[in-house]
Amino acid sequence: MKRFTIVAVFLIAASLVSAQVLHRKKILMPDLPGYISLSCDLHTHTVFSDGMVWPDVRVYEAYNEGLDAIAITDHLEYQPHDKYIDTNHNDAYNIAFQSAKALGIILIAGVEITRRMPPGHFNAIFIQDVEKMDTAKYLDAMQEAKNQGGFLFWNHPGYQHDDGIPVWYKEHDTIFDRGFMQGIEVANMYNYYPLAHQWAIEKNLTMLANSDVHSPIGLSWNASLGQHRPFNIVFAKEKSQEGIKEALMNGRTIVWYEDKLIGKKEFLEQFFLLSLKIKPLEDLPVKKSRSVSSYLQITNMSGFDYQIEFSTGGELVTWGRETLEKETETAVFVRPAKGIKSGKHEIRLKIKVTNLIVAPDQCLETELVFQAEVVE
Amino acid sequence: MKRFTIVAVFLIAASLVSAQVLHRKKILMPDLPGYISLSCDLHTHTVFSDGMVWPDVRVYEAYNEGLDAIAITDHLEYQPHDKYIDTNHNDAYNIAFQSAKALGIILIAGVEITRRMPPGHFNAIFIQDVEKMDTAKYLDAMQEAKNQGGFLFWNHPGYQHDDGIPVWYKEHDTIFDRGFMQGIEVANMYNYYPLAHQWAIEKNLTMLANSDVHSPIGLSWNASLGQHRPFNIVFAKEKSQEGIKEALMNGRTIVWYEDKLIGKKEFLEQFFLLSLKIKPLEDLPVKKSRSVSSYLQITNMSGFDYQIEFSTGGELVTWGRETLEKETETAVFVRPAKGIKSGKHEIRLKIKVTNLIVAPDQCLETELVFQAEVVE
Amino acid sequence: MKRFTIVAVFLIAASLVSAQVLHRKKILMPDLPGYISLSCDLHTHTVFSDGMVWPDVRVYEAYNEGLDAIAITDHLEYQPHDKYIDTNHNDAYNIAFQSAKALGIILIAGVEITRRMPPGHFNAIFIQDVEKMDTAKYLDAMQEAKNQGGFLFWNHPGYQHDDGIPVWYKEHDTIFDRGFMQGIEVANMYNYYPLAHQWAIEKNLTMLANSDVHSPIGLSWNASLGQHRPFNIVFAKEKSQEGIKEALMNGRTIVWYEDKLIGKKEFLEQFFLLSLKIKPLEDLPVKKSRSVSSYLQITNMSGFDYQIEFSTGGELVTWGRETLEKETETAVFVRPAKGIKSGKHEIRLKIKVTNLIVAPDQCLETELVFQAEVVE
Amino acid sequence: MKRFTIVAVFLIAASLVSAQVLHRKKILMPDLPGYISLSCDLHTHTVFSDGMVWPDVRVYEAYNEGLDAIAITDHLEYQPHDKYIDTNHNDAYNIAFQSAKALGIILIAGVEITRRMPPGHFNAIFIQDVEKMDTAKYLDAMQEAKNQGGFLFWNHPGYQHDDGIPVWYKEHDTIFDRGFMQGIEVANMYNYYPLAHQWAIEKNLTMLANSDVHSPIGLSWNASLGQHRPFNIVFAKEKSQEGIKEALMNGRTIVWYEDKLIGKKEFLEQFFLLSLKIKPLEDLPVKKSRSVSSYLQITNMSGFDYQIEFSTGGELVTWGRETLEKETETAVFVRPAKGIKSGKHEIRLKIKVTNLIVAPDQCLETELVFQAEVVE
Repeated sequence: MKRFTIVAVFLIAASLVSAQVLHRKKILMPDLPGYISLSCDLHTHTVFSDGMVWPDVRVYEAYNEGLDAIAITDHLEYQPHDKYIDTNHNDAYNIAFQSAKALGIILIAGVEITRRMPPGHFNAIFIQDVEKMDTAKYLDAMQEAKNQGGFLFWNHPGYQHDDGIPVWYKEHDTIFDRGFMQGIEVANMYNYYPLAHQWAIEKNLTMLANSDVHSPIGLSWNASLGQHRPFNIVFAKEKSQEGIKEALMNGRTIVWYEDKLIGKKEFLEQFFLLSLKIKPLEDLPVKKSRSVSSYLQITNMSGFDYQIEFSTGGELVTWGRETLEKETETAVFVRPAKGIKSGKHEIRLKIKVTNLIVAPDQCLETELVFQAEVVE
Repeated sequence: MKRFTIVAVFLIAASLVSAQVLHRKKILMPDLPGYISLSCDLHTHTVFSDGMVWPDVRVYEAYNEGLDAIAITDHLEYQPHDKYIDTNHNDAYNIAFQSAKALGIILIAGVEITRRMPPGHFNAIFIQDVEKMDTAKYLDAMQEAKNQGGFLFWNHPGYQHDDGIPVWYKEHDTIFDRGFMQGIEVANMYNYYPLAHQWAIEKNLTMLANSDVHSPIGLSWNASLGQHRPFNIVFAKEKSQEGIKEALMNGRTIVWYEDKLIGKKEFLEQFFLLSLKIKPLEDLPVKKSRSVSSYLQITNMSGFDYQIEFSTGGELVTWGRETLEKETETAVFVRPAKGIKSGKHEIRLKIKVTNLIVAPDQCLETELVFQAEVVE
Repeated sequence: MKRFTIVAVFLIAASLVSAQVLHRKKILMPDLPGYISLSCDLHTHTVFSDGMVWPDVRVYEAYNEGLDAIAITDHLEYQPHDKYIDTNHNDAYNIAFQSAKALGIILIAGVEITRRMPPGHFNAIFIQDVEKMDTAKYLDAMQEAKNQGGFLFWNHPGYQHDDGIPVWYKEHDTIFDRGFMQGIEVANMYNYYPLAHQWAIEKNLTMLANSDVHSPIGLSWNASLGQHRPFNIVFAKEKSQEGIKEALMNGRTIVWYEDKLIGKKEFLEQFFLLSLKIKPLEDLPVKKSRSVSSYLQITNMSGFDYQIEFSTGGELVTWGRETLEKETETAVFVRPAKGIKSGKHEIRLKIKVTNLIVAPDQCLETELVFQAEVVE
Repeated sequence: MKRFTIVAVFLIAASLVSAQVLHRKKILMPDLPGYISLSCDLHTHTVFSDGMVWPDVRVYEAYNEGLDAIAITDHLEYQPHDKYIDTNHNDAYNIAFQSAKALGIILIAGVEITRRMPPGHFNAIFIQDVEKMDTAKYLDAMQEAKNQGGFLFWNHPGYQHDDGIPVWYKEHDTIFDRGFMQGIEVANMYNYYPLAHQWAIEKNLTMLANSDVHSPIGLSWNASLGQHRPFNIVFAKEKSQEGIKEALMNGRTIVWYEDKLIGKKEFLEQFFLLSLKIKPLEDLPVKKSRSVSSYLQITNMSGFDYQIEFSTGGELVTWGRETLEKETETAVFVRPAKGIKSGKHEIRLKIKVTNLIVAPDQCLETELVFQAEVVE
């Protein structure tokens, strides 16, 4: 075929790249003591399997959404575009690498081992060469991933079942016993799997939630309506690929799915409390002057909304439920209870945070603690 | 290379397609007498040249944004992905055709003839076989497009000049004289070209504005901030590919760029006035009872905001400027002027519509006409 | 006190009124056969009791939000501003009347009879003279409202109980037996009362949901976050105050609270189905060519989002859940089931609409019916 | 008139207050060296003149919008609600004071002296007793304000003229000469007055822009559409009423009107540059490897969008215009120019900031300065 490409090349190069609008809105979140919180989507696709975008797009999207890291994990065995694209399984990663470097996104090499159920689909990430994993038996592919230093996890466990409920087959025992299942997606794309959540708790699997995005991100989640992809918050010792890997190997994650943060109680509670700054009530009126308003002013410094319910019975009376909106200070109207002590002292307020999920059907219960001065 | 694709195929097919969120928000607009208004983006790219998305994505995006038609116009001579994609120039169209049919989007075959300036880049659309246009001389390519029944237009005339200002070379005379320049982009992507607008008026070229999108649309325009791609509103005799072609050949377009509609006065004025419904003022108080409020209630039934300025001097006094928001009724506070006639009669209110552009630096001036009853 | 007001009056009058931005976004909704659907908030406050706005504001807000009617229902017995405002109980209505007339809002005179629990607070609307209801005993006030042709309903039944759960006292029997409780708020402001909903069904009370707004509406619901006040959709024989009253007397309402429509199954089902337009599948591929995509295209013409879940087992296979967004067409990916019949015939698709509530903890179950052509 | 208020009081008190949704979104802005940046709206109305809200509402709105201070400045001479409200001119301030204290808003006592043009309307703020200013002659009222330690400024100078263009009368000379015009509104509500801006520069008047809000704020500016009230950014030595007063007396303000910041060049330039954090280009490729992308990453830490245009001619080539969105990092694609020096050195990039206005029709021109490493 003739090609007359030469003429236009230089003139186009600039426009090509600058046609992306690269505006990064950081996702604010607290670091836990000793760890840096990193936002990571560990399951994405490109045109190099059945995805709909050129690999760089995954980097641009990650930049704009404020993510720290992504993995490109194209299907190993499913290649519907192979009529047009002559794939080497490492191509997508290699193409996206330049953009990732220029924009400061941590890009993780990965692959999705894509088999019928059982065992279904597994991701292997932090690997060196996907070509070597193109084997007849999935256990061989997993072993190869492991040999390359990979981290492996079970994807969308309820998918491939008509009712969406995951089943743990004997094949999964084998995989688990051989160390090929270090994590599990408790949520993927538009689905949360309570049973997978339960298994993660019981078997101490790293909890994950990923986008599994095939389309451009905007065709899968509508930011105008407040929608966002699911992703993991990884508590790493350092901001690097190695840091993320070490954290995943040791189960230090919580996940963000729809309006919920899901994870171990210890992480969620710290994450929540470190998101808040409470202004002390310095001049709280006594019971008799109830008519004077007092407000408990709570700043949520994080990029996550928290839905809280107040419990009755403490020294302060509050009402119902409240959303602590992200990056916002909320003034909660409070009234001193009859039994409130006079003087300057600590007040503890019991709350439920209904969108922080510590186990299936169980939300975080914790306390807000702050100083108040109660005068006659 | 080995491939173990067979196992996973059927299980994946469904999820692949359903992973797009297909929600179509129609762009409301009035039809002009004798014509149907169709929204068309006639300049888009895919991975089959230097674009960033698989061809179907252009269809999904068009569906969601309420467009009626799109053309895929990959570069003929510029193929930066050819290391990975072995292109036949007709592939992108053929791939996207199924999605377009299933979703009811009119898909137009096209190509961008991509040369240094002069003459720069030209689109040919409504063509049959792009392969035949892969010629050494651009005039041969244009002639071939013409032979196939194509419609040709000059793209982003100011691009390829450092200052962004277009230049009309003698090569453009040749192209124009041979009938290879039937339209011109007065706006493209993020740029409006006043000089191209002037040329369109003087030489009776069809006015066009296109996205020239390379990225996923959401990476080029942020809908959350109210941004949208430029596109053409084509006044066609029927909703079909033939209908669009006939309208383009006869110059029946206006274009939507940023917050402006640009076009011939006759089209803009009709389009604007047919967008509005004015509720008659049935009980307008006379001057002496000024203290009673009257409102002129104007419904803008279209999907376009109109920014209007009222002129002084008529029978009704109004103030300043007002935005007639899309799909919204606006109540404009009015007061009878001293000279207002009593009784039921027609009132004419002179206005400027500052975001309807009939020529460079010239906006539409027109009148609102409605019935009112003026009582003592 | 000296006053030098005269000088400035005329010059200010205009700016005063035009300082409101009056942009009315209509709430699209289907009419039921024989009835017009009217949106009505029947419980609002002004500075003339404990509200925070001048009465006209309630009209401007209603205009902007697309409501057809509002009632101003200031507290009869609770007048915390009386140090500053020398109230006649009819003042608020009389002040707002001019604005309502000028803007075409139906303004309903009302009052909130405000007592300790039992019986709590009751609204009387469509009354002539509130002053006559200022009586020592609440039953006398209710009787007077009744004499004036009023419609009476129990407000926020769970309020005034610490746990928010309503209690039906013997006082409520008396009120109900004497015809002073014709309706009940199943939702008010930020609260839904399942028990009140149950009572409405059992005792055939007109179901209502109102804002009970005291602040400017924007301080109580944040439109930027998609929040809206609760209101009633009244199925009236004509668009007038009389029409609304007749419909309320006969229980023809559904209510809009947060993301839910609540009401009798017969009304909700009709309202939902009449909101939709389904494009027939004219060329549905047979089972063997599953790879070709088909989409069921459903337009939701109303201003309400519907959350639907598809059931399995019919001739078409669909997946999971989908939101039919307001004023939007949704393309739902479908696949013919194995047992599908060939030829042109009607297809029935069972669905749940999870945000249409026919009884506490029970959503609407219904069918989508449309034509399809199934070819080999 | 009988009143049976007593029964309901306590039960209602709580709901009354908690019915406001108090969510404060801070407006991020840099402090200038030696000063704290405070956001202040110095011109608002309540029901105690011709406003539409109870005084507390002004405090709630200020809290939610992240303002630090507001002045309530009801009309002295114009009292259209006096049929209902028996005003003492200090009431509005006194009522709002409790809410302001509880929520931490600085509340400034003020009044609008409201006369025909000339001289039009003047605000006096930081005053002690408005009643004493209720005088026949406006100069007496101004003198009294001055005696009380007030700061006086000319409101909306173009208002009261049909064409909206201000006129400087001899009366204004008198006022200015006697020290009764310390500031001037260069913008008010929906209007910017270039001539007032010019006068402010020439006569060294403190530049101000205020909302002059009469309605609830949400009826005057639609936050869903990105609209906001105008306000002043005051560079104060301390966060207090005294701090604001001292800064106003010494002209240390810039103002925020629509999408523009207006003020003295020295303040705007510092404010802009201190809003930004530029990530150094540590590894900028030389000219020959142009194909490798480099991005200049600029974080705008402030709550204001900046619209910039790059100039040509420096060591780095950039393209066109860019919006540095608020609280966002923008990656600007750059290319080394032919003459760029090798090695690590400072690069200076000339820009215009088209929405920072230093004089009528004149925007800020400045430089971005950062470190880069240019390698062969």
